[in-house]
Amino acid sequence: MRRFLLVAHDARTAPDFSLDDLPGSGGRMDLVARCVTAGLLVSHDVRLDTEFLAVLLGPPKPPRLVRFVGGEIRGLNPDERSTAALIRKALEEEGRAERAVRPGLYVSGMGLDDVLRSPPGPLVLLLEGSPDLRASALPRDATFVLSDHRDFTPEEASTLMAAARLILSVGPRSLQTDQAITVVHNELDRRG
Amino acid sequence: MRRFLLVAHDARTAPDFSLDDLPGSGGRMDLVARCVTAGLLVSHDVRLDTEFLAVLLGPPKPPRLVRFVGGEIRGLNPDERSTAALIRKALEEEGRAERAVRPGLYVSGMGLDDVLRSPPGPLVLLLEGSPDLRASALPRDATFVLSDHRDFTPEEASTLMAAARLILSVGPRSLQTDQAITVVHNELDRRG
Repeated sequence: MRRFLLVAHDARTAPDFSLDDLPGSGGRMDLVARCVTAGLLVSHDVRLDTEFLAVLLGPPKPPRLVRFVGGEIRGLNPDERSTAALIRKALEEEGRAERAVRPGLYVSGMGLDDVLRSPPGPLVLLLEGSPDLRASALPRDATFVLSDHRDFTPEEASTLMAAARLILSVGPRSLQTDQAITVVHNELDRRG
Repeated sequence: MRRFLLVAHDARTAPDFSLDDLPGSGGRMDLVARCVTAGLLVSHDVRLDTEFLAVLLGPPKPPRLVRFVGGEIRGLNPDERSTAALIRKALEEEGRAERAVRPGLYVSGMGLDDVLRSPPGPLVLLLEGSPDLRASALPRDATFVLSDHRDFTPEEASTLMAAARLILSVGPRSLQTDQAITVVHNELDRRG
């Protein structure tokens, strides 16, 4: 199983954003949507062995956690708008406990600390300037943690560094978050 | 200089598609937009050394060629909608000769054959099931040619195979087109 955990610092946590303005009213929900696609979709297929989580930390009611399960999801399309519409639908649920929104899509009130408390496998923190993942052994069933267009806050970085088994980068150039997910998948695909 | 050339078989060739329905009315213009982003943008920056071309072959007036120049473009955002809006603006121009739409964005009536007639560098055709690009020397100033969600037509494949210096793949798994662009860039970034 592969897992990706995105920390989306500005992403809106109520279903009141416009699908016509994902970067603005959605708090860079375009980025979150692209990461879902990079995490779960390949050419004409879904990555059945992958789970994608995003902690949404924007206003008005952070945190909200959305969880997409590759092995269960149906009708996930690659475009940003339709994926953002799924997230908006998920944000209609307000409780703290995890609820199924539709097959393969879950939402809860969990934050980063909650997710890190009982990770199902080792944590790999992706940070620019760290050693290259190509040169590293990669643990099975890892959760790869990434930030959005912002850096991790000092507090997040400290928590994550303490929890991470490995801190790696995806190469010499700082990529967009969804691009980093694509590079991780490609490396894991090659290792079989 | 790096160049990517996308063959977008269904992409609309008139500025009459809806930004609210890029997959449908735009003929998978969402995919074209994601490829522009993968081709030209990294984290908080533009790839100044890269050019991205897309031959649009959908109705009503194919072909149209859009050309994004990383070293000239201004105000390119990563979300699909704003990039598709730029392409829609470009499609307001109807002539065959290349016209500047805005800095770094050009449009013309050229088709695949026209582009292949005088490529500025060697052609690398990206095809699933081909040898892995990681194991191959990569020529300088190459143009990487990719198809969209469809396979190349037999005619396109024949033309491209005759013109290509190399035919390579991005790994063992068939990726979405923008993901393949990301993997190529990552490989070139590592080779410096």
